[in-house]
Amino acid sequence: MRFTVSYSGEATLGIGVRGMKVKVTRSSDIAKKPVEMEGAEGVEIRWLISKDDGAGNFAMRMFEVRPGGCTPLHRHPHEHEVFVLAGEGVFVCEGQEYPFGGEYVIFVPGGEEQQFRNTGEGTLRFLCLIPGSGV
Amino acid sequence: MRFTVSYSGEATLGIGVRGMKVKVTRSSDIAKKPVEMEGAEGVEIRWLISKDDGAGNFAMRMFEVRPGGCTPLHRHPHEHEVFVLAGEGVFVCEGQEYPFGGEYVIFVPGGEEQQFRNTGEGTLRFLCLIPGSGV
Repeated sequence: MRFTVSYSGEATLGIGVRGMKVKVTRSSDIAKKPVEMEGAEGVEIRWLISKDDGAGNFAMRMFEVRPGGCTPLHRHPHEHEVFVLAGEGVFVCEGQEYPFGGEYVIFVPGGEEQQFRNTGEGTLRFLCLIPGSGV
Repeated sequence: MRFTVSYSGEATLGIGVRGMKVKVTRSSDIAKKPVEMEGAEGVEIRWLISKDDGAGNFAMRMFEVRPGGCTPLHRHPHEHEVFVLAGEGVFVCEGQEYPFGGEYVIFVPGGEEQQFRNTGEGTLRFLCLIPGSGV
């Protein structure tokens, strides 16, 4: 039996039963990578929960956008579910601008042309979840 | 054509094109309801994004647990994807205890007996996403 418990906290733990794949991790311990898609400016991503964890239905990513930065203006068939952790910005969707701040929720149906812009003075951080294995 | 843009910010907005159902909302503006499932103690829920918003693949909920409170010790076939917004607690899964704090990520595969307990002095707040239309 292969145990795949992932845990980055301080406590000493027993190993889960039944080969469970529970993951309990500080998000800051997950690798952060630059988003290199054309149009991205000052954007980094952490894949917090994905297929690699056995999550086949939807994936949780954390984005960080530097002040003045933005995600690519792009369009794709799948939806986004977003929760803003910190910062201020404008969500651009089909030419409309929606200002937002911390603890805002944003749902974007598939097919809409969209972009997140950091208009604040600090780092913009948000969770963005997508269905399936990702883009 | 019915426009269903939902927006609770200060800005005056144009209405989206193509009848899009974008939602941009302060999470605190979404109704909070007590969780009345047996075993829940001091737990409230906000359905941030759900089928009502046109989100058919997965749903985003926010939970608040008072100090000393807990979610029900329960088991179900679907997975959880959790992000801890604030507070401290212990995630109990199949008898193992996993302490966590703010900005922790927790992935729980389907079928595991589980519970969140608030062991801190403040309110425990976390996002919990589930596939489909939810339980």
